[in-house]
Amino acid sequence: MKEENTPEKIIKNVHETRVRFNECDPLGIVWHGHYIVYFEDGRESFGKEHGISYLDVQRNGFATPIVKTTTEHFLPLKYGETVRIETTFVNTPTAKMIFRYELFNEENKLVCSGETTQVFIDLEGNLQLYNPDFFQDWKDRMEI
Amino acid sequence: MKEENTPEKIIKNVHETRVRFNECDPLGIVWHGHYIVYFEDGRESFGKEHGISYLDVQRNGFATPIVKTTTEHFLPLKYGETVRIETTFVNTPTAKMIFRYELFNEENKLVCSGETTQVFIDLEGNLQLYNPDFFQDWKDRMEI
Amino acid sequence: MKEENTPEKIIKNVHETRVRFNECDPLGIVWHGHYIVYFEDGRESFGKEHGISYLDVQRNGFATPIVKTTTEHFLPLKYGETVRIETTFVNTPTAKMIFRYELFNEENKLVCSGETTQVFIDLEGNLQLYNPDFFQDWKDRMEI
Amino acid sequence: MKEENTPEKIIKNVHETRVRFNECDPLGIVWHGHYIVYFEDGRESFGKEHGISYLDVQRNGFATPIVKTTTEHFLPLKYGETVRIETTFVNTPTAKMIFRYELFNEENKLVCSGETTQVFIDLEGNLQLYNPDFFQDWKDRMEI
Repeated sequence: MKEENTPEKIIKNVHETRVRFNECDPLGIVWHGHYIVYFEDGRESFGKEHGISYLDVQRNGFATPIVKTTTEHFLPLKYGETVRIETTFVNTPTAKMIFRYELFNEENKLVCSGETTQVFIDLEGNLQLYNPDFFQDWKDRMEI
Repeated sequence: MKEENTPEKIIKNVHETRVRFNECDPLGIVWHGHYIVYFEDGRESFGKEHGISYLDVQRNGFATPIVKTTTEHFLPLKYGETVRIETTFVNTPTAKMIFRYELFNEENKLVCSGETTQVFIDLEGNLQLYNPDFFQDWKDRMEI
Repeated sequence: MKEENTPEKIIKNVHETRVRFNECDPLGIVWHGHYIVYFEDGRESFGKEHGISYLDVQRNGFATPIVKTTTEHFLPLKYGETVRIETTFVNTPTAKMIFRYELFNEENKLVCSGETTQVFIDLEGNLQLYNPDFFQDWKDRMEI
Repeated sequence: MKEENTPEKIIKNVHETRVRFNECDPLGIVWHGHYIVYFEDGRESFGKEHGISYLDVQRNGFATPIVKTTTEHFLPLKYGETVRIETTFVNTPTAKMIFRYELFNEENKLVCSGETTQVFIDLEGNLQLYNPDFFQDWKDRMEI
């Protein structure tokens, strides 16, 4: 049982990528829709580090479609810049995977933040109302 | 002056497009990040119909970067399907352009909804705290 | 039997689309890799008009992966411009689908040309050395 | 003067990347048009290693639009696979930058090859018929 006042355990991944020419728009900055790809890069990198990648999900007979995304932009990113993607798992009792993203430029300034929510569906496309076993096992292993 | 109890005037555009093969992911459905492109299609189509396109914005010496996007997914879209994008202008007293999107499949079911918020910056990149004249003029013409 | 000196029958589709903001790069022009999407648009439109779409191919139990693409660029395309995609079927005795693309801007100038070659594979992924029946039937109907 | 029978000096870059989920199509493989992005990744990586990146080109007052691309596909790539991009400079006396790409999967098999041709234009958009000085200097430094 979780003790009162225990600070929430933070599970996180840090991933770096460089802004591609083809990711930038006529304003010379990363096109806003492209941040969704950076979020996916962060989520992938998180999954690889912490053993809960999309391929793990598939191997267990599930898919995890995104049902909600929010994105906020604070500063632009330009072609050639390095961006640091910090991806944090947001714990929830419901049968969902929620990730929070914070993107920083080379001067360590927050350029974008966002969040994605994924649900679990089985191979027949049925929405899972409870955490699939493999996911609950993972949460247990992560002690969250 | 606006009368009390006047229902809000709704300014809207309806645009149809077909789902491209290259917009779909290994699950055979439109990749979630691609809906941002559909939103842009809707916004463009709205701008053309109502005289407030991105090229109009540029001609007046401004850019309107997206500062916030939300997207919610209810049903998948498959390759070859026709999607109807309904784009509605969300009026706000602040110096922002807010659009609301509702996407429907061929059975007239809501597959996705979302919202984008844009701010005005001038050619030097300065954020505008008040509506630029051309935008206020447009709102006046639209009687909102 | 085909008579000597009979000019080759030309089967063609003409499709128009508008250049999206997100298709343009920091030079303000359509990013060169994006023409592959325009080619796909042209091919799709050809398929719909002439009854040989990718969904027809799938329904008959085949996939037609692209094995070769060439693209040549003569003029840039800018955001907001309309582009006309002319897609022509290139007849060949081998078990391939070859399409030729010519893209024109609003001044009717050739901006890009290219060609794609597709082969037929069945559901098990086997390369077909002879035209599948449905494709030969289509060629017969088209009298080529 | 180049001696007869001197083997051509090979200038090359090797770059690795992982196939993203969003780069794959409904067949579960990398969409063919996406290889153009991999080529750009290889070219960028080449430029960084050998001091002739796109940012170098820009700093010298030129742009190098792609005027021709060819792509050949031999094997599919799947989501999660690592791909090795080998980019080789193809020397030519004309005022062009030609790169040759060879992409290998994890089993070291050739999955795709291709070539891009770039020309030099100055800030006014004028095509350069002779190598710009900075590029000729680079070739001299590379001894090609």
